Amino acid sequence: MVFSPEELKEFTGFASRLADAARAETLPRFRKGTTIFNKAGPWFDPVTDADREAERALRRMIEKIYPGHGVLGEEFAETKAEGPDSGNWRWVLDPVDGTRAFMCGTTSWATLIALEHDGAPVLGLIDQPFTDERWIGANGQTFYTNGGETAAAKTSGLTEIAKARLSTTDPLATGYFSDEEAKAFARVAKAARVARYSLDAYAYGLLAIGELDIVIESGLQRYDYAALIPVVEGAGGVITNWRGEAPGDDEKGELIAAASPELHRAALELLAG
Amino acid sequence: MVFSPEELKEFTGFASRLADAARAETLPRFRKGTTIFNKAGPWFDPVTDADREAERALRRMIEKIYPGHGVLGEEFAETKAEGPDSGNWRWVLDPVDGTRAFMCGTTSWATLIALEHDGAPVLGLIDQPFTDERWIGANGQTFYTNGGETAAAKTSGLTEIAKARLSTTDPLATGYFSDEEAKAFARVAKAARVARYSLDAYAYGLLAIGELDIVIESGLQRYDYAALIPVVEGAGGVITNWRGEAPGDDEKGELIAAASPELHRAALELLAG
Repeated sequence: MVFSPEELKEFTGFASRLADAARAETLPRFRKGTTIFNKAGPWFDPVTDADREAERALRRMIEKIYPGHGVLGEEFAETKAEGPDSGNWRWVLDPVDGTRAFMCGTTSWATLIALEHDGAPVLGLIDQPFTDERWIGANGQTFYTNGGETAAAKTSGLTEIAKARLSTTDPLATGYFSDEEAKAFARVAKAARVARYSLDAYAYGLLAIGELDIVIESGLQRYDYAALIPVVEGAGGVITNWRGEAPGDDEKGELIAAASPELHRAALELLAG
Repeated sequence: MVFSPEELKEFTGFASRLADAARAETLPRFRKGTTIFNKAGPWFDPVTDADREAERALRRMIEKIYPGHGVLGEEFAETKAEGPDSGNWRWVLDPVDGTRAFMCGTTSWATLIALEHDGAPVLGLIDQPFTDERWIGANGQTFYTNGGETAAAKTSGLTEIAKARLSTTDPLATGYFSDEEAKAFARVAKAARVARYSLDAYAYGLLAIGELDIVIESGLQRYDYAALIPVVEGAGGVITNWRGEAPGDDEKGELIAAASPELHRAALELLAG
């Protein structure tokens, strides 16, 4: 769907206020010896007070302004859209994507906010509070704000994989990747020019402003990637699962974003082996 | 050596002016489609205009104020200390440590400035222009400045490796590490709580403010690590080569920094296997 000018203003404005509210919970706790909990799971997954408190704050705001809208977040149970005015809207929230980054003091963690309509992400927001950077994608456009200045975000448009700047959060099979996935990633890494790691959602923001060319990940949940789709697509990039289908159409949470259709196709071929 | 109060003020002030001058060359070129050159070498090593122009500017300033001092930088030939007033002082410069980070738009590149006396680093400065963060270590103290506020920097003091936050720039043997070094790093990573990658010199800054606990690297040159020594030691950390000796006392450029002597010892044992 495409927002009307009034809807675009309303929903991007509300998403920005959600991101501001998240900042108020996350930034004062960043680099302040945040309490770390351990969630049960196959690998270490820290959850911070910042994450919980920010999600609580955002849910309260959504319930107040859009009581019929659904909410999917990382920390609490899903609220389904309901009522004749719900319009099948769902907000998808991850107040602190990259909790490991957050606990290590690095600045690649981000607040992710998506608005879905009938199951498709139609608005995406990535916010990095410490560096004061924000990306908002909707209606096929993405805008990037840093230090009060806003500009249209565009990918590099790079088509040659030999020149590509590549990223994944953890290239080792001991992290998010299975052995097979780590080998597939290594094939792309070998063909690319340079690789950077541990960037979480921030990597997709960098891709959207032309600073990275390919991002490849696995093990992602809906709240990890819903917001990335409008941001990457609005900047002229391509974002799919590793089979070239819509993100989420597999059980592995595999995701690939590229700066151009040509680069996306070349990377998909290398992933397939 | 220990600086007198007058010397401390003079040299930390001059180092800060050097860092400001480097910012004027690097920041305007960051995320602006910087021209990338390739230096000859066993692996890809981009050098940017930012690096060259900043080193030129810093060398001019040093030659003007301290004409007898030596200068060692990454980009140009070494100038040896000379004359009766040289005092065996040498400035060690790396205007853009982490040129791969710089070319990928990530914010972990840094300007590194060290002042050595009789071969020992007695002042170290780490500067990240985009995030406006600066660390200065001298006389056994380190100060951290962010957004105009300055505070004494202290490591976490962590002693248990099971709780440690670990970092290296590239954990793969295809990067800086040899096969043997990658295995040694993996032993530490297995014992630690969490690992983050691709942080370059910024990782040592995070260690100095208590946000990372261990940083392990290899393949470093003098200009990559001279500035890190006073910063880490001034914050209460330990920094040596992988054999526990002064950094530089081996041919491999191996470096380990830890938040406490206990943690340093535990990590060295795991590195040794």
